[in-house]
Amino acid sequence: MSRSLELERINTLRFLAVNMVPNANSGHTPGGRTGGGAGPKTGQQCSTAVIAEIGMTKKQPDVLTPELLESIDRYWRAANYLSVGQIYLCDNPLLRRPLALTDVKHMLLGHWGTTPGQNFIYAHLNRVIKQYDLDMIYVSGPGHGGPAVVANTYLEGTYSEIYPDISQDDAGLQKLFLQFSFPGGIPSHASPECPGSIHEGGELGYSLSHSFGAVFDNPELIVACVVGDGEAETGPLATAWHSNKFLNPVTDGAVLPILHLNGYKIANPTVLARITHEELEQLLRGYGWTPIFVEGHEPALMHEAMATALDTAVQQIQQIQQNARVMNDDDAGGFARPRWPMIVLKSPKGWTGPKFVDGFQIEGTFRAHQVPISDPAAQPGHLELLNDWLRSYRPQELFDERGRLLPELAKLAPEGERRMGANPHANGGLLLRDLHMPDFREYACDVPTPGASGIGDTHVLGPFLRDIAKINQEQRNFRVFGPDETISNGLVALFETTDRQWDAATEPNDEHLAPTGRVMEMLSEHQCEGWLEGYLLTGRHGLFNCYEAFIHIIDSMFNQHAKWLKVTSHLPWRRKIASLNYLLASHVWRQDHNGFTHQDPGFIDHVVNKKAEIVRVYLPPDANCLLSVMDHCLRSRHYVNVVIAGKHPAPQWLDMDAAAQHCAAGIGIWEWASNDGDQAPDVVMACCGDVPTLETLAAVSILRENFPELKIRVVNVVDLMRLQPQTEHPHGMNGQDFDELFTTNKPVIFAFHAYPWLIHRLTYRRTNHENIHVRGYKEEGSITTPFDMTVLNEMDRFHLVMDTIDRLPQTGDKGLALKRRLKEKLIEHKIYIDKNGQDLPEIRDWQWRGKT
Amino acid sequence: MSRSLELERINTLRFLAVNMVPNANSGHTPGGRTGGGAGPKTGQQCSTAVIAEIGMTKKQPDVLTPELLESIDRYWRAANYLSVGQIYLCDNPLLRRPLALTDVKHMLLGHWGTTPGQNFIYAHLNRVIKQYDLDMIYVSGPGHGGPAVVANTYLEGTYSEIYPDISQDDAGLQKLFLQFSFPGGIPSHASPECPGSIHEGGELGYSLSHSFGAVFDNPELIVACVVGDGEAETGPLATAWHSNKFLNPVTDGAVLPILHLNGYKIANPTVLARITHEELEQLLRGYGWTPIFVEGHEPALMHEAMATALDTAVQQIQQIQQNARVMNDDDAGGFARPRWPMIVLKSPKGWTGPKFVDGFQIEGTFRAHQVPISDPAAQPGHLELLNDWLRSYRPQELFDERGRLLPELAKLAPEGERRMGANPHANGGLLLRDLHMPDFREYACDVPTPGASGIGDTHVLGPFLRDIAKINQEQRNFRVFGPDETISNGLVALFETTDRQWDAATEPNDEHLAPTGRVMEMLSEHQCEGWLEGYLLTGRHGLFNCYEAFIHIIDSMFNQHAKWLKVTSHLPWRRKIASLNYLLASHVWRQDHNGFTHQDPGFIDHVVNKKAEIVRVYLPPDANCLLSVMDHCLRSRHYVNVVIAGKHPAPQWLDMDAAAQHCAAGIGIWEWASNDGDQAPDVVMACCGDVPTLETLAAVSILRENFPELKIRVVNVVDLMRLQPQTEHPHGMNGQDFDELFTTNKPVIFAFHAYPWLIHRLTYRRTNHENIHVRGYKEEGSITTPFDMTVLNEMDRFHLVMDTIDRLPQTGDKGLALKRRLKEKLIEHKIYIDKNGQDLPEIRDWQWRGKT
Repeated sequence: MSRSLELERINTLRFLAVNMVPNANSGHTPGGRTGGGAGPKTGQQCSTAVIAEIGMTKKQPDVLTPELLESIDRYWRAANYLSVGQIYLCDNPLLRRPLALTDVKHMLLGHWGTTPGQNFIYAHLNRVIKQYDLDMIYVSGPGHGGPAVVANTYLEGTYSEIYPDISQDDAGLQKLFLQFSFPGGIPSHASPECPGSIHEGGELGYSLSHSFGAVFDNPELIVACVVGDGEAETGPLATAWHSNKFLNPVTDGAVLPILHLNGYKIANPTVLARITHEELEQLLRGYGWTPIFVEGHEPALMHEAMATALDTAVQQIQQIQQNARVMNDDDAGGFARPRWPMIVLKSPKGWTGPKFVDGFQIEGTFRAHQVPISDPAAQPGHLELLNDWLRSYRPQELFDERGRLLPELAKLAPEGERRMGANPHANGGLLLRDLHMPDFREYACDVPTPGASGIGDTHVLGPFLRDIAKINQEQRNFRVFGPDETISNGLVALFETTDRQWDAATEPNDEHLAPTGRVMEMLSEHQCEGWLEGYLLTGRHGLFNCYEAFIHIIDSMFNQHAKWLKVTSHLPWRRKIASLNYLLASHVWRQDHNGFTHQDPGFIDHVVNKKAEIVRVYLPPDANCLLSVMDHCLRSRHYVNVVIAGKHPAPQWLDMDAAAQHCAAGIGIWEWASNDGDQAPDVVMACCGDVPTLETLAAVSILRENFPELKIRVVNVVDLMRLQPQTEHPHGMNGQDFDELFTTNKPVIFAFHAYPWLIHRLTYRRTNHENIHVRGYKEEGSITTPFDMTVLNEMDRFHLVMDTIDRLPQTGDKGLALKRRLKEKLIEHKIYIDKNGQDLPEIRDWQWRGKT
Repeated sequence: MSRSLELERINTLRFLAVNMVPNANSGHTPGGRTGGGAGPKTGQQCSTAVIAEIGMTKKQPDVLTPELLESIDRYWRAANYLSVGQIYLCDNPLLRRPLALTDVKHMLLGHWGTTPGQNFIYAHLNRVIKQYDLDMIYVSGPGHGGPAVVANTYLEGTYSEIYPDISQDDAGLQKLFLQFSFPGGIPSHASPECPGSIHEGGELGYSLSHSFGAVFDNPELIVACVVGDGEAETGPLATAWHSNKFLNPVTDGAVLPILHLNGYKIANPTVLARITHEELEQLLRGYGWTPIFVEGHEPALMHEAMATALDTAVQQIQQIQQNARVMNDDDAGGFARPRWPMIVLKSPKGWTGPKFVDGFQIEGTFRAHQVPISDPAAQPGHLELLNDWLRSYRPQELFDERGRLLPELAKLAPEGERRMGANPHANGGLLLRDLHMPDFREYACDVPTPGASGIGDTHVLGPFLRDIAKINQEQRNFRVFGPDETISNGLVALFETTDRQWDAATEPNDEHLAPTGRVMEMLSEHQCEGWLEGYLLTGRHGLFNCYEAFIHIIDSMFNQHAKWLKVTSHLPWRRKIASLNYLLASHVWRQDHNGFTHQDPGFIDHVVNKKAEIVRVYLPPDANCLLSVMDHCLRSRHYVNVVIAGKHPAPQWLDMDAAAQHCAAGIGIWEWASNDGDQAPDVVMACCGDVPTLETLAAVSILRENFPELKIRVVNVVDLMRLQPQTEHPHGMNGQDFDELFTTNKPVIFAFHAYPWLIHRLTYRRTNHENIHVRGYKEEGSITTPFDMTVLNEMDRFHLVMDTIDRLPQTGDKGLALKRRLKEKLIEHKIYIDKNGQDLPEIRDWQWRGKT
């Protein structure tokens, strides 16, 4: 045994010694300080004795015999072989003849670096799944682990079940290899095409929050989440470690993070690999985890260490769950927050790959990130190196003469739905159950006449959401997520029936916190989005409520989820999941004191860039419409629904019947506000959004008072996508219908919630487009009154009236005189608010009076 | 002394005992483990003896006499009084007459919760600035600290110097109070209007990365960065703690984070306040910091503790810097990464505010977040409570009869530019020096004829950036930021002259890492953006290079920076800063193996929503244009410039003279590719972006070969904003110029880099808009070849030709026949790539042949 091997043996033994007594705290607190008071009791204090006790009630762990570890090693070699094969080979998949240049792909694309480590983890997870009969899925955080998840789901048989053409023989292997990173084939991530994946990882940072989302309300599920040490540098991942403060061991499952410390990103070392062991351990313990370290590179030792670590971790998880579940007979719990186990796997990047190529060290360096051996056609010796590398796995010892994994290895994988590639949680639509939905009409606010006063639209929605939470309490498949804004956004009614789930310490003045609850709040839009996505992807329902301006924080997460939905909607074996629903309250028009930083209505612009089959945007003008829209969104499947609604008291326009009808149409003439009757109107006053609707109706009042002869049509838009041609979006209107609403030649004054050019983008193909004049948000406004905010953006009633006069020469001198009066009024208004800090009473108290 | 006070005294003494011997590591490592090998040496091991030694060379710390602490307390009371005044009062600012309802604002808006803690910190920072003659600025992370920073910059005199109308007397105070959260006034954040601010904090999460950006290359600067415990839950903040691995104590300044643990967000407790003291300490030590805890609520004790803590922290910072700077005579350094000090200030939310209102506890709970005493006009007893609260600060003991802070208190603030509100680093334009710029023409690639082969446009840019880094080495005011993609994006030449700054451990195979360097790489777009913003805001220059798809990760950070630029550009005292420059390489059209997750060209759509005076978007078609554009961007001020360029080998079109001319115009006819001469063209082939330009020219070749009689005009767009009307954007073209380029009635086939509708949005007002037919990205494409990617989105040469034929009936039967041939060609191409994995040779090797 060489000196370094000896050293490794010692380290492994040290690991065994340290970790087999996984007392989460003793001896590990810095300096023995005992803190400033009686904090919550420390987590599970499971000692060797306790582990022995589990042993009595649970299955005994395998004896880690040399034979068992050797067979795991062979399984790992098979996965590694298939991974290298995917990156390199287009033919001769099992090297039954000497490797030739023609067997090698022209373009070598893919990522080797993270792959062998993930293969290692997957093989060991297979063992514990079988050993403990675990319900487990695998999340591949590091990004380019495609070859690993494909190889493993192929080895376990799920890949061929889903794609029979990729059969378990030489011919299937050849196709498996060829398709990888090949035009028309599959990408180098755990993409939607890969069975068992709920997390593609093309963009890094969300593996842990996805994993937690998956285990909420799935008490039997364990998500093994491999976190790349590159990924760990991202902000979203850095805060996601704190998810353990929001996990209930009674009613939720467990996440087993495996921090894969392979040391390098693309061309740089990683931060976590270049701090001291002490710092890393402090960091992870500080995050509330109990890390188990597995470090080294010698396979035999590493197999033993990893197997032991996983036994320990699984037993700790089971112990924590048993303690919590047995000790408590209800959800409320009385236990201290457990310190869950996690694993730190420190193994070389590109492990088992070539050690040196062209004089450069590869294994264990950043150079192993992508394709370690380049261009065998041009580079002398590279084909031989590749041949040696491939044959180092001894495929002939792993696959039979037909190209099928040997039975004694195949049996190492779990069976049926226990296979991580076949686990239904990773194809959430299979498990999706409809929400029980109360009748939204019963939550209607009374609108005896248009213009009735309202309490704030989201405040009307609150009780509807509350009762959805209530009647689905038993099936536990609905949650509301938000960054500490659920009350601020007007949804306080939820707390009449549920709480915020909170598993950290509590104090006397806390409100609405409980170990389990339907509301998830952390001040991180990334966490809210990631948790919700994980929850939806595993077959449940939910809603993200957020300030409109700050939803941009998760623009890129939305992108990736929308892409996932687009791709999966064309994979027949992937069942549809519940839609991702956004409720953007606290919107751009009412940031009276927050000002400019809180104003950005551009999320819609971002959303409509994505595939039309996936995205829906709703701007209900009042509370009853909001109820109708939200009912629709929560029943829908495989969309992203964006709903924008206000929380401040505002006039109500439609009673429930009218609202339901209006929302079903998505767009329509408001007859009660129009006076064009059966005739062609002189002008169309269009509006989309609650504040624009209010200002438009106020403008209509002024116009009607001053020009009673003017034929005005009011069109309200709820479903924004109705404006697009039907060729562009499934909700799009055909040209004739559009022209009937908006005419082919009359001026259209369009007041819009967001940036005005979006309306032009959606309507530029329409006959009457050149007459559509849009007012919307233009990046103007700091500290304002509600009306002043519209004035600054020229979307107020006065500007809408002036716009109309400008486009209707028939208003003549009377029109010009009115314009002068309105301009004076604007000055009067400005003077008034400068003095009083609020809008002129006549504006504040304006009410729709109906037809004059 | 009550029991709790006694306890507090004990805790404070414990604090003194623990922290005055700030041995960063001993006794604080968990369980005494020594790690798996010889890590880097632990940080500064400064002992009491060492501190004493500093004392010999540096100023002695103040003796913290009761008198000194008492005067700090009075200063704090003054700031607290002014903060409550801002939230509540519109008149009677110093309560010279009994408080009346008419003195109270109608609308009570603002945030008290974080304010007293920030006032406390600011007062104590003033002391250490004076004591140690520090060059220090203040970053207010918690968000709603507006009242505190306004109060303190007013007390120190800077506010009145900048806004003379807000004078230091009763009349000025009245205006100071009235303007806060009042229409037309100032918001409740540390907004741009507030002197000394470089960080508004309306959106949370970026305080630490901004602070680090500020101190890079500012070795004398210390940024005191208050991190809110709410903010600390965000992803960007959670990873920003790791910035200490990228800070060089020799050439950079220091950040002193002050984690303000006041326990609550809007309506929830914070995570970091509800983990054990041990966990929090482990977490912060794990992040590499040495935390100093200051906990309590009794002012006298807290003043003593905070003063001592700040003395300790400042001395530790100075010791670290002295150790590093004296021990090393060059930048390379040989020291271990220091463990910098930080402070954890645990004080009650809404400290010194009302304890109970209407029976609810306020101070020390989430209820102190905003306005603790609501609506005195309607709520019985509230006016009295407010009166008591205001008078509890005893303003008559703090301000003289004219309303000016008493001289003995005013002298506690630093003077001149040492005042944090007047420090020029916080108004970076004051310190901005032009970059030395080499002549970009000297980096030109040779283009003897259009279509010459290129090495990849960003690879040509690399040497230009390298030399900018080189010739500005001495003035140290240029850095390049990127998430480990600088090499991947083609900028490897930078490493010929500089390195990545990296202050964590290194290992033998590392490349291009050094303790100081011009390149900053961490796998966090948030960090790159935040660092760069902080660097620019303090008067330096930089560039962010990023994959195009993942720049969406910082959409919302861009929003906030653009808003900052918009507001500051209208504040005469704020000097203009260098532009925020994005280089988006690795763009949507060349993600051959990364696939769908790496495709999103929508950042432009997001950017153009912001104020036109701020945003610029450039799509250089080749390397020489890229050089010209980047030269322009790096010289510009107060913009956000987005530059999109490819890294893959691609044809070059313009020699340097032509490129410079073309970029100066921003848009133009490429005569050499056109054959319309002086006549009106039959069709305009427009293109914007490198790949669209290639496909357009290939399409023009096909058209010319088949229809030599056709008059084709080729228009290339570099500066996207040229397309808008001049009324919409400063770069916009007037109608006549636009019509001369695009005609008023001929078909325009427009190949565009990004989503096609952006072109419609920019041109919908143009005469010929209805004839503009745009091809761009449409969310299609997974694993593709370069050409196939364009085919999937119908932006390839064949589709462009077919589009043209469709719009030119004169092509007749010949046109129809050509369409048929092209469709067959597309099938042939598909078959070829399915087999070979690359584009047909005739496509791959196509070259522009010039005029036929």
